[in-house]
Amino acid sequence: MKLARDDLEDLCRGAAFLGTGGGGDPYIGRLMVQQAMDLGHSVEIIDPSEVPDDALVIPTAMMGAPTVLVEKLPRGDEAIESLKRIERFLQRKAFATMPIEVGGINSTMPLVVGAYLGLPVVDADGMGRAFPELQMETFAVYGVPGTPMTITNEYGDSTLIETHNNLMMEWLARGVTIRMGGAAYIAEYVMDGATVKRTSVWNTLSLALKIGRCLREARQRHADPMRALLDLLPQTPYSFGKIIFAGKIVDIKRETRAGFAQGRARIQGLDDWDGVMEIDIQNENLIARLDGKVKAIVPDLICVMDTETAEPITTEYLRYGQRVTIVAVAVPPIMRTPEALAIFGPKGFGIDHPFVPIEQLD
Amino acid sequence: MKLARDDLEDLCRGAAFLGTGGGGDPYIGRLMVQQAMDLGHSVEIIDPSEVPDDALVIPTAMMGAPTVLVEKLPRGDEAIESLKRIERFLQRKAFATMPIEVGGINSTMPLVVGAYLGLPVVDADGMGRAFPELQMETFAVYGVPGTPMTITNEYGDSTLIETHNNLMMEWLARGVTIRMGGAAYIAEYVMDGATVKRTSVWNTLSLALKIGRCLREARQRHADPMRALLDLLPQTPYSFGKIIFAGKIVDIKRETRAGFAQGRARIQGLDDWDGVMEIDIQNENLIARLDGKVKAIVPDLICVMDTETAEPITTEYLRYGQRVTIVAVAVPPIMRTPEALAIFGPKGFGIDHPFVPIEQLD
Repeated sequence: MKLARDDLEDLCRGAAFLGTGGGGDPYIGRLMVQQAMDLGHSVEIIDPSEVPDDALVIPTAMMGAPTVLVEKLPRGDEAIESLKRIERFLQRKAFATMPIEVGGINSTMPLVVGAYLGLPVVDADGMGRAFPELQMETFAVYGVPGTPMTITNEYGDSTLIETHNNLMMEWLARGVTIRMGGAAYIAEYVMDGATVKRTSVWNTLSLALKIGRCLREARQRHADPMRALLDLLPQTPYSFGKIIFAGKIVDIKRETRAGFAQGRARIQGLDDWDGVMEIDIQNENLIARLDGKVKAIVPDLICVMDTETAEPITTEYLRYGQRVTIVAVAVPPIMRTPEALAIFGPKGFGIDHPFVPIEQLD
Repeated sequence: MKLARDDLEDLCRGAAFLGTGGGGDPYIGRLMVQQAMDLGHSVEIIDPSEVPDDALVIPTAMMGAPTVLVEKLPRGDEAIESLKRIERFLQRKAFATMPIEVGGINSTMPLVVGAYLGLPVVDADGMGRAFPELQMETFAVYGVPGTPMTITNEYGDSTLIETHNNLMMEWLARGVTIRMGGAAYIAEYVMDGATVKRTSVWNTLSLALKIGRCLREARQRHADPMRALLDLLPQTPYSFGKIIFAGKIVDIKRETRAGFAQGRARIQGLDDWDGVMEIDIQNENLIARLDGKVKAIVPDLICVMDTETAEPITTEYLRYGQRVTIVAVAVPPIMRTPEALAIFGPKGFGIDHPFVPIEQLD
């Protein structure tokens, strides 16, 4: 399917929702694809089933703290350079690129790469949401080595990393990204088509578009966008969602530490909602507690949305005084297996609380 | 020339002297070459004039804090892997390897690489001493790009770096080295033979051997080894040396910070020497002040030697109570040009004092 320019805003909004606070500013993501389209390039999105089993797929993304991205914008060709350096290393050309996660930047970065290089973008990703670290991917969970991977910055400085495991890849790549100023552009988890089909979360690009469109259309017809979204989810692999809180942000602590945006947001209940909700952040929203009681926990989605407009708010844009509604969403089964939870469940973040599906939390 | 096993101890001693406190533990360096020789490999050292102008030379080295090396020994093949990854990247085989600096480890690491790979080692280097940072090389001073460079650790994890300048190479490579545990093994400043001849400090391997032999032979004939060394220097490009102090180490502050061994040694004068000498350290000895007055300054050599045995003491082995004699040595003209001083003169280390040749300091 050829992506329409008019769909971009919806796609980025939906991606920011699925990004669960992370994945980067959808506004920047949208502008980058628009620019590529303005220059006459088009974006071709293909279903994973359309990728030949032996075709080479090179995923591309932004890496770093989304807080940094607010001030340090990408030049635009960094991820392209990362992909090309992998091609040079492997002495093979890519058949397609694809996202490694869903998010305002990281759903669109591969669209930019695909547009400029004339490569299709696979409608799937390796997280089914956004996660802060590179080993936290379904690709890794189901046995794909992350390296060779490349990191490139706006000067064309580049690093090609090969490691004996994906945790070491994350460790070295994070160090390089920090020294590149906290945000850089990567290509990693090189796979063949058969592996894409086996290890990715399918159709998250088209789902982002669907979600973004659902929110906008509800607003346009003066319906309740949150309600419309919660009605849509059961028709998707993200089978269940609910509002877990609404209130006003009364405190936001956020710093860029060890290469991540880390912090905690405190939300005071308004209207029917009593108490104070605290949300812990590492790039993404990880756990939401109401007066100390867990209401949603990683890898399920915790989405902070503007109460008035139903626009998703990424963690770097949380501000004192914002009126927000918190929506929690069940992730697809591929992200809740024991193998998956071992890598990106609460333990992967040092959170001393077992994973409990959002459906079972009241 | 084929390096004799019996020459190894002299070579490492002399290299530690020229390493001016840095360049790594000569004992570890010697053991590594001995092991290669025990396994039947030989070390061929060739003069820079013997390298064909279009031959590919890939220098190899240890990178990191020498303090770390005391506890984290190399496996032995890390630098070989770094060289091979450069070869793979360039799709060309190396004609020879060579040192990037003079020092107990970094003069011998290329000997180990050469021994196992059957490559000759060029009798020259890129510092004429040891320096802590990768841009501080005569190669860089005279226009050679440091990248592509590779860093490999004991697990075979490896990073290939390409940057737009040598300072950025140092910055990224240091970050990777720190995350590899503070010591790793590199290949960098890939050159052709003509460039080796133009930009390197010639014959520092054979000079190290000469210096180490001179010290040992003087000891054996019960002569004064310091005197013998000072008499030898005028016959070399290191044309002048003098004893600037002797005393007892009364304080040593040393920590591994930002990937370097940093600190300061205080030496209380003994016998004919009055006052307190302070030596500032960043892996190497950078500046020696006697009661606040500068007595020797980088890039000239400041060598701390055991007063009893005339054995050079690298910075990681400085200890309270050691009786030491401080020898300062003039470096060759290629290291004192304005271009060279701009990169590895006092300013390169943030030292607010102009370079004054040791010959002009009293």
